Amino acid sequence: MVVDDVVAWRRHLHRHPEPSFEEHATSAFVADVLGAMPGLAVERPTPTSVVARLRTGRPGPVVALRADIDALPVTEDSGVEFASERPGTMHACGHDGHTAMLLGAAQVLAGRDLPGGELRFIFQHAEERPPGGARDLVAAGVLDGVDLITGCHLWAPLPVGALLVRPGPFMAAADFFELAVVGCGGHAALPHEATDAIAAAAQVVTNLQHLVSRATDPLQSAVVTVGQLHAGTVANAIAGRAQLSGTVRSFDPNLRDALQAGVERVARGVAGAHGATVELEYVRGYDPVVNDPAATTLVRSALAATFGDDALVDGAPILGGDDFSAYLGVVPGCYFFVGAGGPHPHHHPGFTIDEAALDTGVRAHVAIAERALDGLGAASDARR
Amino acid sequence: MVVDDVVAWRRHLHRHPEPSFEEHATSAFVADVLGAMPGLAVERPTPTSVVARLRTGRPGPVVALRADIDALPVTEDSGVEFASERPGTMHACGHDGHTAMLLGAAQVLAGRDLPGGELRFIFQHAEERPPGGARDLVAAGVLDGVDLITGCHLWAPLPVGALLVRPGPFMAAADFFELAVVGCGGHAALPHEATDAIAAAAQVVTNLQHLVSRATDPLQSAVVTVGQLHAGTVANAIAGRAQLSGTVRSFDPNLRDALQAGVERVARGVAGAHGATVELEYVRGYDPVVNDPAATTLVRSALAATFGDDALVDGAPILGGDDFSAYLGVVPGCYFFVGAGGPHPHHHPGFTIDEAALDTGVRAHVAIAERALDGLGAASDARR
Amino acid sequence: MVVDDVVAWRRHLHRHPEPSFEEHATSAFVADVLGAMPGLAVERPTPTSVVARLRTGRPGPVVALRADIDALPVTEDSGVEFASERPGTMHACGHDGHTAMLLGAAQVLAGRDLPGGELRFIFQHAEERPPGGARDLVAAGVLDGVDLITGCHLWAPLPVGALLVRPGPFMAAADFFELAVVGCGGHAALPHEATDAIAAAAQVVTNLQHLVSRATDPLQSAVVTVGQLHAGTVANAIAGRAQLSGTVRSFDPNLRDALQAGVERVARGVAGAHGATVELEYVRGYDPVVNDPAATTLVRSALAATFGDDALVDGAPILGGDDFSAYLGVVPGCYFFVGAGGPHPHHHPGFTIDEAALDTGVRAHVAIAERALDGLGAASDARR
Amino acid sequence: MVVDDVVAWRRHLHRHPEPSFEEHATSAFVADVLGAMPGLAVERPTPTSVVARLRTGRPGPVVALRADIDALPVTEDSGVEFASERPGTMHACGHDGHTAMLLGAAQVLAGRDLPGGELRFIFQHAEERPPGGARDLVAAGVLDGVDLITGCHLWAPLPVGALLVRPGPFMAAADFFELAVVGCGGHAALPHEATDAIAAAAQVVTNLQHLVSRATDPLQSAVVTVGQLHAGTVANAIAGRAQLSGTVRSFDPNLRDALQAGVERVARGVAGAHGATVELEYVRGYDPVVNDPAATTLVRSALAATFGDDALVDGAPILGGDDFSAYLGVVPGCYFFVGAGGPHPHHHPGFTIDEAALDTGVRAHVAIAERALDGLGAASDARR
Repeated sequence: MVVDDVVAWRRHLHRHPEPSFEEHATSAFVADVLGAMPGLAVERPTPTSVVARLRTGRPGPVVALRADIDALPVTEDSGVEFASERPGTMHACGHDGHTAMLLGAAQVLAGRDLPGGELRFIFQHAEERPPGGARDLVAAGVLDGVDLITGCHLWAPLPVGALLVRPGPFMAAADFFELAVVGCGGHAALPHEATDAIAAAAQVVTNLQHLVSRATDPLQSAVVTVGQLHAGTVANAIAGRAQLSGTVRSFDPNLRDALQAGVERVARGVAGAHGATVELEYVRGYDPVVNDPAATTLVRSALAATFGDDALVDGAPILGGDDFSAYLGVVPGCYFFVGAGGPHPHHHPGFTIDEAALDTGVRAHVAIAERALDGLGAASDARR
Repeated sequence: MVVDDVVAWRRHLHRHPEPSFEEHATSAFVADVLGAMPGLAVERPTPTSVVARLRTGRPGPVVALRADIDALPVTEDSGVEFASERPGTMHACGHDGHTAMLLGAAQVLAGRDLPGGELRFIFQHAEERPPGGARDLVAAGVLDGVDLITGCHLWAPLPVGALLVRPGPFMAAADFFELAVVGCGGHAALPHEATDAIAAAAQVVTNLQHLVSRATDPLQSAVVTVGQLHAGTVANAIAGRAQLSGTVRSFDPNLRDALQAGVERVARGVAGAHGATVELEYVRGYDPVVNDPAATTLVRSALAATFGDDALVDGAPILGGDDFSAYLGVVPGCYFFVGAGGPHPHHHPGFTIDEAALDTGVRAHVAIAERALDGLGAASDARR
Repeated sequence: MVVDDVVAWRRHLHRHPEPSFEEHATSAFVADVLGAMPGLAVERPTPTSVVARLRTGRPGPVVALRADIDALPVTEDSGVEFASERPGTMHACGHDGHTAMLLGAAQVLAGRDLPGGELRFIFQHAEERPPGGARDLVAAGVLDGVDLITGCHLWAPLPVGALLVRPGPFMAAADFFELAVVGCGGHAALPHEATDAIAAAAQVVTNLQHLVSRATDPLQSAVVTVGQLHAGTVANAIAGRAQLSGTVRSFDPNLRDALQAGVERVARGVAGAHGATVELEYVRGYDPVVNDPAATTLVRSALAATFGDDALVDGAPILGGDDFSAYLGVVPGCYFFVGAGGPHPHHHPGFTIDEAALDTGVRAHVAIAERALDGLGAASDARR
Repeated sequence: MVVDDVVAWRRHLHRHPEPSFEEHATSAFVADVLGAMPGLAVERPTPTSVVARLRTGRPGPVVALRADIDALPVTEDSGVEFASERPGTMHACGHDGHTAMLLGAAQVLAGRDLPGGELRFIFQHAEERPPGGARDLVAAGVLDGVDLITGCHLWAPLPVGALLVRPGPFMAAADFFELAVVGCGGHAALPHEATDAIAAAAQVVTNLQHLVSRATDPLQSAVVTVGQLHAGTVANAIAGRAQLSGTVRSFDPNLRDALQAGVERVARGVAGAHGATVELEYVRGYDPVVNDPAATTLVRSALAATFGDDALVDGAPILGGDDFSAYLGVVPGCYFFVGAGGPHPHHHPGFTIDEAALDTGVRAHVAIAERALDGLGAASDARR
């Protein structure tokens, strides 16, 4: 049974997570599994990624299917039996499942009698850490000749069995910043001889809230999250430096620019008010994931045929980012969500999925791959 | 030359700092040096402290001299040749000098012809970390039979050669708190599903400022410093927990109580406003150092005779705390400052002293010890 | 020319603005103008509102058209020749134009040969001040027998000639709060004997930002605006009381509840952190304006026929509220926007409109009224 | 009985308070009362102040006694029978008592057989409102020829009968600022089109707290109070301008400069962080009241002789300011406090005094005046 393999693969990966750009064991494992499947040509376009081509040998479209394979710097607290054996690293976003599902789909499809063309299975490294692995693979030519790319993300807020596919804006622009508030350390009892970086940084965080609450059109979506704040080494010394990092999400390009300018303006203005300075590195992250309408129609059609119309649920765009957008900047495609029904949000130390979702994912990949080879091939024939 | 030894000892200690309660090598070194001096009985009342008795064999008072020997969790950035070889630990408060000066004084006094009585040299561990080492030594009976205790602190803001001795309140009550702001972690782009501990903690820090700015009598002294704030492991996840620690300084007992109540009230009120909870551990630290008037007169007299009246400078009380107060709760005594003339505040990564201060410190200890044996002995004789 | 009259009426009203519930001169003026038109039965359902019925005498539907007539407590700084002669009161939202346009429409329609049925012109008081005048008129029976109600708002962000009509959610729930932060006044130099209401209120405002920035789904719309903060009578006394008022906007009922709870939680938690208390009056304001789909289709059809398809522009829902929703809770209807092209936002002291918009508004009312009598009459006939 | 008159005068003045620089009825009343006393030459150096000279006709020193006569913009809520009849104005600092006590002293002294010299009774306007009335009187030559000036303030925190007299720094420098935070008004539901002056001003107030909590030496005294914050005219419009005023107190000149720079730095930095600008007027107010040691000795001596040594209590300097310093900049003198025993702080709407304090004040003035004429005369004789 493919599903048994998929569950086993997923659990193995879950137990052995690797952070972004360090997926050495993970990619080796993927390559090994793929290498055992008939007809797959396995390549290593970068040190920690894997691409496998399934060539039918007959003319037809090239359809790419993508899974991301990296884990997060989170210490697992999920209670599962196959929990991470690596403290400080965890598959807390479901990429273990993505990887296993695409392996399962490759196994199924490798045994099928396919229409002409080629399927390309992309196991991408480093989705969680901008600048991300997708652009490495594009640069390495992984999309050369590709006509369509699809991919999916397990999504805990959706129940198992539900599929969320929507045309147009689907996931947000995800920008990142590293911000140091630099004061001057000193004795805890002599504040006037120091410049308290914690007090200044706290005010920066507090004032940053206004970017969303006051400076953003309420009908637009924006998020400014400070995800890390680290300062000080001891209770009785004033910290001279506070190190913050965060992320900014938006869909609208003008708002994206305004938020970037706002983070800098608030940080400099407020830190300066307290005699501190700032060191700000603002990194434009992944562009928004915008699904191609025709590709979306194809994906919805394939999924409806396999799972029924009711499985396709409505849903709003997601403020999470994904470097799947790097592929969509090059070829048309569609990214969608597969209900995973977990009790915790993604990135949470207790994150888990309902493994029944893995079967849905495998079948979705297979259905889309076959439909795409077929449909695009027919379209291609018609164009000839 | 004693001074050459003192400088060498100080540099050795500076190079090999040890944190509070872990002064194993430091105390071994002190015990070794003391062991080589004639007439000293060396004891180890606790695993990382040393006490040496110099008994004259004739009746007379018992005079204790104290130095603290521990270092701070600071990474040195002073540029001195003999900088700490232990990243993350540094003699950033001058205890290396304290230790060396008292060793030097012991060496000088061991060679002197003293009046009757006993000198007790106390090399105390863990001054920097409440509950502190002084109370361990009191509990171990180190002060049994002691008539007077003195000690000094190198003080960078004073020029070398200056001595600050004042009766009454001299150093502040230094209380400490550990505060966790507990929210609920989650995906950086889904703030409504999480409770952002960094945003809440920043508001707690911001609101804590009011305790000093609005709730304290401007004619009173108070400090509330948050010295550490650590939260989050990654830019694109909302931190579910922020860990803060800090210190509160005051001289007045009612204000001390009010500040403790205020820290709790602000933390709970503000965190609660954002749906977060707090875990607060508030530890009453060292009591204020209040110098005994008669002991202060004796110390001033000894110092004036040695260094001249002009060396005794005026100065305000200090908001830094010191567990020398634990001794003063048991026997009368006097704590004073020895000008050390450094460019940086204490506890700063660049902290240095002018080593010329070491000579002053040694001579001060010697002068006080002799005067005390003499003066208290005479007084004692007179009382008989 | 009707338009000349409309401009003159509007300028007269602009010069003589009256605040909500005090529209005595305004309503008298409206009644006088209507009274001079043939065939209109003028009524005064409340002291400061006017309703005029134009009965055809033949069977048919009853169609209501509504304008709001009150002004705002803003001191005009627009520079127009016909500026408010009443300092502190200004037609800064365009209700002068609404009133004049509906008067113009009444004049035109009073001269037309209409299909059967009745037109009811509603000049409503107190739209700007919840609980609003609309519910008074509903209670007074003004909608009795009405089959459809429409109304429009001049909208400065849209260019003149543009019309924004959309089915479903169109304007937000607009809730209001009065919040007193109560401390204890005192001498400016003795903060510890007082409880500074300004310092506490500032923190409340600052912490309220988190409701939108952290506690609201970024894909939802929410606004929390503190529009007034008044505290203190002199620079050298600590204010014992700060009086705030504000508004909260949302479309989603659960979010609306959460924001109300949040305002109270933040106000109590933060004020309490500083020893202050709060007095909070939270008034649920106007419900969201949700346009009836069929009514919207009818309105769009009438407007497209009169102004062309291109005049109907796309647009997002508006976070401003309007008590037009009180009518929509009773009868189906549609509220829409008429481009007014001014340089300033509504409620701004410099607010102006391009008076060319008045002609659009009159023609829109007329077109809708005729189409509604006709279309609903036909539908009604068909149902018989 | 003089005391009965003093109580009656005080109650009359309390009932009819007048704000600073508007003491027309008050000064007329004072002049009338003084005019009825024998031997007093009454002058009106400025429109709302009164000076009366009591010349002995024999050579001797000139001794000035000063009372301030203005009230505060506070609405009384004390419940006394003779409460202010003028809403919004109140003798909430005790100047009514000061005036009545000095009138009483003049009445007593006018009937006494005095040593040679001259007594000058100064009833000064506008102490509560910088730049204050004292400098007007100095400019008008009121101190010409004066050898010594004294004055007293009723002080509610001290019990009746207690007198606080101390040499050196006695009252603080009291500086004032007017601060406008200027954003851009707009519709409450469109925050992104406005710049919310209330949100920005709240952050300014919040960040100003750091000047005292973090930027001031804890052993120094500093107060930064925002006493007024007024912004917005209606709940559903974003305020485009917030008007703040406040006061800054200090004793140390360097700290005074640093606080002024800090207020500007914080206001500009924080407002700028939110796209707002500031208009700041910072007015150096009264200099610190520093009592002349010799004058203080004379005053203490006179008071001890009259009230006994125990009446002279110890006390710290006061952070309240008083333009008595303007006189002390010209002639030596001493300002002191007379216990008034009220339950509320000064400037509080419920402020009251125990009228028994009035008798103490009269007798203090008389004792000091006689002692000064005598002592200074003798000293003067001795110098001849």
